[in-house]
Amino acid sequence: MYDGPVQDLIDELGRLPGVGPKSAQRIAFWLLEQPQADIERLATVLMTVKEHTRTCSVCFNVTDEQTCRICRDPRRDRSLICVVEESKDVVAIERTREFHGLYHVLGGSISPIDGRGPGDLRIAELVRRLSDPAVEEVILATNPNLEGEATATYISRLLADTPGIRVSKLASGLPVGGDLEYADDVTLGRAFNGRRYVGDE
Amino acid sequence: MYDGPVQDLIDELGRLPGVGPKSAQRIAFWLLEQPQADIERLATVLMTVKEHTRTCSVCFNVTDEQTCRICRDPRRDRSLICVVEESKDVVAIERTREFHGLYHVLGGSISPIDGRGPGDLRIAELVRRLSDPAVEEVILATNPNLEGEATATYISRLLADTPGIRVSKLASGLPVGGDLEYADDVTLGRAFNGRRYVGDE
Repeated sequence: MYDGPVQDLIDELGRLPGVGPKSAQRIAFWLLEQPQADIERLATVLMTVKEHTRTCSVCFNVTDEQTCRICRDPRRDRSLICVVEESKDVVAIERTREFHGLYHVLGGSISPIDGRGPGDLRIAELVRRLSDPAVEEVILATNPNLEGEATATYISRLLADTPGIRVSKLASGLPVGGDLEYADDVTLGRAFNGRRYVGDE
Repeated sequence: MYDGPVQDLIDELGRLPGVGPKSAQRIAFWLLEQPQADIERLATVLMTVKEHTRTCSVCFNVTDEQTCRICRDPRRDRSLICVVEESKDVVAIERTREFHGLYHVLGGSISPIDGRGPGDLRIAELVRRLSDPAVEEVILATNPNLEGEATATYISRLLADTPGIRVSKLASGLPVGGDLEYADDVTLGRAFNGRRYVGDE
């Protein structure tokens, strides 16, 4: 609809996930009003991001060095490994400041429908890390959906007999700040099954 | 939260209008999985879009040439000039295929709150175009909001006594496919005031 490069920009922006044609147009016109230096900064980051990004050789989190910031940090508790699907899950957990161990990024979940089996995830690499005698506990923090649960079940069975390793899973229950009335049946059911007796802690 | 260039990319993407931190993260990780050639195509368009984009010397629509595609098209009806706020309004009207005249892009609307007066819009340039004897009608198609209405009123008063020029305004009324029950009061009121007697046409 537009002449030349503006339409090219709208088309390219429209390919980004979650950016529809209207948003692409809005972003394109906004960009045209920005200083050239600002646009070039975005363009330069885009050009170089892939080349400068790799996965940590220990935990497979995204990083720009051999090992990631978390694995390099001497203050992290090396007895705990929290297993997540993606690097963005690491960030979500870090934001809580509740966990001070290490991570292991699987690179997805088991999903037969998408043709992803256990062999497509970094499960062998996880098992290899457990030979380090420092490791005491593996915390499964896959997504609370069908694929994530299947992945957690697979890994917990695989590790069941590993000597000196406890396997745990994040608690299921009502989200804090949520409304009981609006909780879905499965979440509410799990909240009942996982109930804790007051005074136990 | 992320190491190095991934965080830079998320920060840059997060500055785009309508892209929140979650979307920026999602787009960044999606980009990391795309072929380098695809990312470079976006980066290249970004680098060059400003330099290759100008406004049409006649109507001020965005273009990559001296005059835009619409002004160059010999099939367009040169007796009609449709006045819009922005280039994206041209695209919206072109999509209807109802209008075959020329456009005039004002570059915004009168908005005292944002410090934009008539002098900041391309109104003098519009008046200059009307000296062409081919022009018979100016259709005001500014946005149906406070600023757009003020702009339309200003221009219609300014052009009121121009000989040989009729000034019209887009019809206000109920949007097609809308539900009467959900129409806002002002729209419904205008639909009443602008009602047409069946059989008049």
